[in-house]
Amino acid sequence: MPTAVKVSVIGAGSAQFSLGLVKDLCLTEGLSGSMVSFMDINEERLAMIHKLAARYAEELGADLRFESTTDRQASLQEADFVINTAAVKSHHHQRAAREVADKHGYYYGLKNRISFYQFQLMLDVARDMETICPEAWLIQSGNPVFDGCTLMSRETDIKICGLCHGHYGLYEIARTIGLERENLSKITWQAPGLNHNIWLTHFYYEGQDMYPRVDEWIETEGETYWRTHVANRTHDIQMSRGAVHQYRMYGLFPIGDTVRRGGWWYHTDIETKKYWFGEPWGGPDTELARPLFVENLEKRLAEMTRLANDPKASLVEALGDQKTREQQVPIIDALVNDNEGQFQVNVPNRGALAGVPDNVVVEVPALINKTGIQPLRVGSLPPKIMLEHILPEWLAMERNIEAFKSGDRSMLLWNVLEGHQTRSYDQAVAALEDWLAMEGQEEMNDFFRYPAGGEMLLQTRSAKA
Amino acid sequence: MPTAVKVSVIGAGSAQFSLGLVKDLCLTEGLSGSMVSFMDINEERLAMIHKLAARYAEELGADLRFESTTDRQASLQEADFVINTAAVKSHHHQRAAREVADKHGYYYGLKNRISFYQFQLMLDVARDMETICPEAWLIQSGNPVFDGCTLMSRETDIKICGLCHGHYGLYEIARTIGLERENLSKITWQAPGLNHNIWLTHFYYEGQDMYPRVDEWIETEGETYWRTHVANRTHDIQMSRGAVHQYRMYGLFPIGDTVRRGGWWYHTDIETKKYWFGEPWGGPDTELARPLFVENLEKRLAEMTRLANDPKASLVEALGDQKTREQQVPIIDALVNDNEGQFQVNVPNRGALAGVPDNVVVEVPALINKTGIQPLRVGSLPPKIMLEHILPEWLAMERNIEAFKSGDRSMLLWNVLEGHQTRSYDQAVAALEDWLAMEGQEEMNDFFRYPAGGEMLLQTRSAKA
Repeated sequence: MPTAVKVSVIGAGSAQFSLGLVKDLCLTEGLSGSMVSFMDINEERLAMIHKLAARYAEELGADLRFESTTDRQASLQEADFVINTAAVKSHHHQRAAREVADKHGYYYGLKNRISFYQFQLMLDVARDMETICPEAWLIQSGNPVFDGCTLMSRETDIKICGLCHGHYGLYEIARTIGLERENLSKITWQAPGLNHNIWLTHFYYEGQDMYPRVDEWIETEGETYWRTHVANRTHDIQMSRGAVHQYRMYGLFPIGDTVRRGGWWYHTDIETKKYWFGEPWGGPDTELARPLFVENLEKRLAEMTRLANDPKASLVEALGDQKTREQQVPIIDALVNDNEGQFQVNVPNRGALAGVPDNVVVEVPALINKTGIQPLRVGSLPPKIMLEHILPEWLAMERNIEAFKSGDRSMLLWNVLEGHQTRSYDQAVAALEDWLAMEGQEEMNDFFRYPAGGEMLLQTRSAKA
Repeated sequence: MPTAVKVSVIGAGSAQFSLGLVKDLCLTEGLSGSMVSFMDINEERLAMIHKLAARYAEELGADLRFESTTDRQASLQEADFVINTAAVKSHHHQRAAREVADKHGYYYGLKNRISFYQFQLMLDVARDMETICPEAWLIQSGNPVFDGCTLMSRETDIKICGLCHGHYGLYEIARTIGLERENLSKITWQAPGLNHNIWLTHFYYEGQDMYPRVDEWIETEGETYWRTHVANRTHDIQMSRGAVHQYRMYGLFPIGDTVRRGGWWYHTDIETKKYWFGEPWGGPDTELARPLFVENLEKRLAEMTRLANDPKASLVEALGDQKTREQQVPIIDALVNDNEGQFQVNVPNRGALAGVPDNVVVEVPALINKTGIQPLRVGSLPPKIMLEHILPEWLAMERNIEAFKSGDRSMLLWNVLEGHQTRSYDQAVAALEDWLAMEGQEEMNDFFRYPAGGEMLLQTRSAKA
């Protein structure tokens, strides 16, 4: 017997995400009869998504119901699951922010961490859930997963599970060292840590440790690969020189978005980025890659618009009839239908990852079934990874939350100052003030104030001289 | 009835420190009959100190006995107190190290934290004590107090108390805002934290909060002071613009050596240092200040040599007959004679300072009497200080200890890379290797090895290009 649930999708205007979700729901018999509630502030997109979803389900003959609304609280009524994928600020705003930073001498952004608007939205959703659907699960699918899930889990009582794609990087390693795509299910692996900061502690194929094969690949093919490999998507960096360099520093392979972090020295300029992350874009976080990434998003959106406006087009043909690799729907299926599985989730630690405080959200494997989401107690990461990556990142997250709660502008300044590209106090003050003064950030600019006597913090030597 | 104890002084070749100690012992009746055992590897200095100490005590008619030895284990026999003030590497070696860094583009040193030789010596002393005088107190009086005391307290079972002068900076604030020298004893204050990282949480004079007077001084006299004040000693920076700037960032005044830290932006070059820490030297950590500091040490040593060679000179006249402000002898007096007092000590935390792990040494006030050293449970520091100063410093200490225990050269590299002055990976590799290859560091250079596959970490782009 299938179980009908209500899934509320906040920020449903992302065509790729929402239609992927619908596809997975259509192809999951146990969730037949379910209702998907699309919520977004963009009415036009919402109408398009609603139309495409309904047509796709109809084509497949799936029993799903849909609603769409710009009213978040309405969407949350009777929800069993809330999937929050919303991003408050557009890619265009982010680009403008990078341009402001660029003017002040920063390559590719200030790298200040404050998540004011995302935190506000996340807390609004979580607090609404406490009132409207307190028993529902929140599946947080938008960034920052680490900081945001930690904040929401501290400030509200709702059940939270954060998800990310990063861990699929493991399969890129597997394919590169020669494992066949059809055999990937025979891999046993573990990569715990914090979101965007996970490390491959275990990697077996049919019970055999695969690390020696990784070492052999590096030894025999690494240099050639780094010299000749040309990425076909901006995020194709799992086997880059930078990833292997981090592996050599730490003895464990960094997985997925973890590779995009690492020290500042991988990220100083486009030539350096290409050296570590390869041609032609130097990884996803460069002035060459980002426009392409945004362009692709827009192309997909245009294609969706075309499909929506062409009632004769087959959506099954366009979107396929295979499940995505997203975890949201399988997790819902596991929770409501006891269709047990292992997943990579972000949940409050409470002992799963040794050495990290209980009230911090960690990314760990979990067994999920009708009992709930049960993280595996994975033990510990090596001291060097804890001391150079996990714990410093924990402190950065705590500073982000503390700044958000205190409204202390000097914490934003400290953040910019600490950025490795900052060359002087005066530069940081000017860059921060210009960034805060950007259009569309008025509320944040007003919220953050210097502490008593803080005028001194705005004094610059150049102004005095 | 006085209590005779044996005090072993490790690194007794520092004339100023050793003779100050002797002076305090001579002037502390309760310790009459005590034995001071001077230990150093420099025989010549040792003989001079021994002679001066005996003559000084005789002039004052104090009942003290002295011995001197280059054999540490002999000195520790039957010791009740061990005062370790030894520094393995000379000021000249430190200068040479700064010159190596300078060649690689670093202003005033690499600022890498590794304390290989000091850690070795500290552990050697503490382990010898476990065997030879397990009941004795170790009074650690040489740097790094924070890292070293934490390491020794984890690796041995001896009783440890670390001491530093930094907290006396409080009295410089008091005098600057107009409190009279003879009234300083009416101040009640508290400045907890980690060594060289302490923050004035409480500051009362006759029960009145003095922070408003500090604010008034800044408001009315600060700018004039910063424009006109000329330091008469290199460490005169307690009221500098840099100190007040930190106060404005954090709402609590940084005390003593805390002022010398702060962010990298106070320390980029000599002009910047002068802006924040004043004329004529820009604080104690500059190429202008350090030679003067070392020169003064050498002048004092020359003066001691002259006195030692002039049997007719009055040492009481030369050295005075007032107690120093050092805490070592009063603490011994408190412990053995129940002559109770409050002191600023560095001891394992175990709950004294909230938010810091139990097995980390904190600097806190303590009540000391026959019962022992009893740290006050001071509560907590503001979140911003914890997140931007205390906890990052805790992690840096943990990395220092982990590097020392693991011998992982990549941790030294990471340390240099993280230094804000480092501009590229290649620069860090070259600077580290040159520094490790310095004369007198052969054992350390041999001890630290790259992990498996670590050749890649030595590859530089410039070499490849």
